[in-house]
Amino acid sequence: MIDQHWTFDRQSQTPLYLQLYQQLRKAILQGAFADQRRLPPGRAMAKRLGLALITVSQAYDQLAAEGFVVRRPGAGTFIAHHVPLASDEIATRPFQPTLSSWGQRVAGTAVPTTSKQTKPEIDFGFGRAFPHIFPYDIWRKLLARYLSTDDAMLSRYGSVAGFLPLRQALADYLTRWRGVVCTAERVVIVNGAQQAVDILARLLLEPRDEVLVETPGYADAAALFTLNGAQLTAVPVDDDGFRVDKIPAHSRARLAFVTPSNQFPHGGTLPLARRLALLHWAQRQDALIIEDDYDGELRYDGRPLAALQGLSADERVIYLGTFSKVLFPALRLSYVVLPTALVRPFVQAKQLIDRGAPTLTQAAVADFMVEGHFERHLRHLRQAYGQRRQTLVAALQNHLAGAVQYADEPAGLHVMLYLPEGVTETAVVQAAAEVGVGVYPAAPYFMAHPSPPAILLGFSGLSEPEIAEGVARLGRAIKI
Amino acid sequence: MIDQHWTFDRQSQTPLYLQLYQQLRKAILQGAFADQRRLPPGRAMAKRLGLALITVSQAYDQLAAEGFVVRRPGAGTFIAHHVPLASDEIATRPFQPTLSSWGQRVAGTAVPTTSKQTKPEIDFGFGRAFPHIFPYDIWRKLLARYLSTDDAMLSRYGSVAGFLPLRQALADYLTRWRGVVCTAERVVIVNGAQQAVDILARLLLEPRDEVLVETPGYADAAALFTLNGAQLTAVPVDDDGFRVDKIPAHSRARLAFVTPSNQFPHGGTLPLARRLALLHWAQRQDALIIEDDYDGELRYDGRPLAALQGLSADERVIYLGTFSKVLFPALRLSYVVLPTALVRPFVQAKQLIDRGAPTLTQAAVADFMVEGHFERHLRHLRQAYGQRRQTLVAALQNHLAGAVQYADEPAGLHVMLYLPEGVTETAVVQAAAEVGVGVYPAAPYFMAHPSPPAILLGFSGLSEPEIAEGVARLGRAIKI
Repeated sequence: MIDQHWTFDRQSQTPLYLQLYQQLRKAILQGAFADQRRLPPGRAMAKRLGLALITVSQAYDQLAAEGFVVRRPGAGTFIAHHVPLASDEIATRPFQPTLSSWGQRVAGTAVPTTSKQTKPEIDFGFGRAFPHIFPYDIWRKLLARYLSTDDAMLSRYGSVAGFLPLRQALADYLTRWRGVVCTAERVVIVNGAQQAVDILARLLLEPRDEVLVETPGYADAAALFTLNGAQLTAVPVDDDGFRVDKIPAHSRARLAFVTPSNQFPHGGTLPLARRLALLHWAQRQDALIIEDDYDGELRYDGRPLAALQGLSADERVIYLGTFSKVLFPALRLSYVVLPTALVRPFVQAKQLIDRGAPTLTQAAVADFMVEGHFERHLRHLRQAYGQRRQTLVAALQNHLAGAVQYADEPAGLHVMLYLPEGVTETAVVQAAAEVGVGVYPAAPYFMAHPSPPAILLGFSGLSEPEIAEGVARLGRAIKI
Repeated sequence: MIDQHWTFDRQSQTPLYLQLYQQLRKAILQGAFADQRRLPPGRAMAKRLGLALITVSQAYDQLAAEGFVVRRPGAGTFIAHHVPLASDEIATRPFQPTLSSWGQRVAGTAVPTTSKQTKPEIDFGFGRAFPHIFPYDIWRKLLARYLSTDDAMLSRYGSVAGFLPLRQALADYLTRWRGVVCTAERVVIVNGAQQAVDILARLLLEPRDEVLVETPGYADAAALFTLNGAQLTAVPVDDDGFRVDKIPAHSRARLAFVTPSNQFPHGGTLPLARRLALLHWAQRQDALIIEDDYDGELRYDGRPLAALQGLSADERVIYLGTFSKVLFPALRLSYVVLPTALVRPFVQAKQLIDRGAPTLTQAAVADFMVEGHFERHLRHLRQAYGQRRQTLVAALQNHLAGAVQYADEPAGLHVMLYLPEGVTETAVVQAAAEVGVGVYPAAPYFMAHPSPPAILLGFSGLSEPEIAEGVARLGRAIKI
């Protein structure tokens, strides 16, 4: 056995004794010492391998410490009696786990592949911030403030519901600018809006419970409801958002997921009449509404419209907001405003699931809000994105007038283009790719099929000249 | 109606028009204009309230934009016809949601209250890092590096499975120092070990599936299994950890949760013979083992023992590790090494649930590891904590010799003291509190009851003199 193939790397960061130990351990477990149960004496081993005796002794010590070998003074070093010596005892075919039904549903979910093969020259991807707008210098200073002065903040687990000054800053902001009715106690910080939807689905839904979703709509939320066993009822949208009048009369749904500020992905703001009708529906059904206000701050025609949540006098609306769109996605910070009765169960669930979000980032965001940087940054974003959106719409008029339709809502970070009848969206996506333009199919966002051909164009990651050039190329590519 | 109580705060950050809008909106929804459907003319309103006409006009504009009122040129401003005018239509009793059975289990879970009423003078709390050991200056520099040079890293969603250089650094480290067999592809970054347990429970367990857990053991993992519908079988531990021989012969468990490096909270390292027996049990049952290596780095008598995971030739062990104990808890970064067949379902689940951990921190931790700071920091921690542990054990010898028992394992961040028969742990916790010493009951960690009286003493958050003084007081307090 001692003549097996040994390899030692003297340049490695791994000490030599550890390299020897690892190879001996593997050899023992594979039964290489089965015939004798005895390791070669340290001196002999050292000589044959060209190692120092101390190196071999340290390796044997480690094997002894872990119970692989027993040292008998005067007799030598022996494989411990409980170590299997026949290699056929060891299964080497990788284990194949059996997934639960939840696991099988997860495995069957089509996760959009962020295919990085060929990044298009002009990429109308969405869900991207425009990096140069964010005030990195201020952000760096705020982080550094906590890094240098408050070590204790880093060294403890934070509060599960979130860092209280951030919850307070959010409650102030949401009350003032989004018309949300809340106190800090009802605001909980989550690691992205998806986590809030997942926890809510688990807290509220039994298998086969019905949930109303928009079509087209936010597919990832719908996927979480389905994963948790719910049955989806897809309600169509128009340029004014969720068609409350299309909720089936026989629906027994106790939960609805909607995007009233700016319907995702179609675009459009739910008018007051529909908001009130939706709230009345919820009261009649004793249902809850999840309002996903994923980009309510990003309106380009004046002050943002107030949230649906503020219209509900009986806390029947759960409000979701996120920093991903208005600060940056990698922050992974979102928040939820809960009905009073749901705060405790939600926080208990979060306590068990992940113990809360990192404290440092929350502290920096709280200061960013309290010290006025947030509102200033939002003004910059609205100006920058509003101009980009105008550029996009002007280019669509120039190059695709009459050929495509879209909800002309001065809001959000993308436009959804409905293509002419008979055109297939994959053909358009492909033709655009061939001229270096990335556009994205809308089909994954429809909950009912067949869906009308449509594509999504995000504009927040591109400059105005890129947007104009991209639409020009798109117009030529789809040859209309 | 115009004579209702109006309040305006001219010092507020909220503009006056917004304050008026908010009060008008509330009044409209409460039916205050029910008798006339008409708002007072702007001039009259401005005069009565002592506001500028432009302020009232802006408030009316906002109400009109949101659909509450309609302006009829020449006639005035009217409540929109769809706005309910009778206040009795509006429910004001807060909504009471119906929780799912999962939600009811969550609500019924006793979450340890981090009671902050009276923080004890000497607090043997555990799960705390000793803040002065961490190299904040280096950490700050690493964060600043990414904050200043790579804005794009902040502005995109990160990889769901984690930042690849961190996964690679972890794979190298775990292979070299923890005896784990893995590549970066099998390492996934999670927001705390609890998240990994939750996802695994959901992926693997059907309702009423049996799971083996240790008693005493890690109660929060057990709680997650129970939440997800599993039946727990509690297997006792001794000073050598999990009693594999006590697994019931009729057990049909396909999953076991163990802490082989240092049994939590009893203390003790699982010897090789039991490790091999556990792996054989798993092969016979076609079961998976979750190895929670929550503090495997923290051994004070030489090199850490290799992980159980490395002994399994067929990927039957899932390895959990965390940075909470060795960097700082507020980081909220842990990692899991998965069997190849589980990587894809796990990442798909994480994609839907929360889209991955923040990129910036991961990048800084990756550099912290690759540039050698991590191993240096671990050496400092081992020295500092090892000395604290020795101080604690010496003080126990001085003040409580013969009265208490504990596993004398030179590892970890706490010691579990078994109290004499007949002593109740709540009485000891109370007596200690009265002399300014915080110790913690062990009962919540037992999965089978009645449990022997025991308390937990964490030592990582205290200085050596505090530890000695705390144990001296404890000895007097429990009057042994």
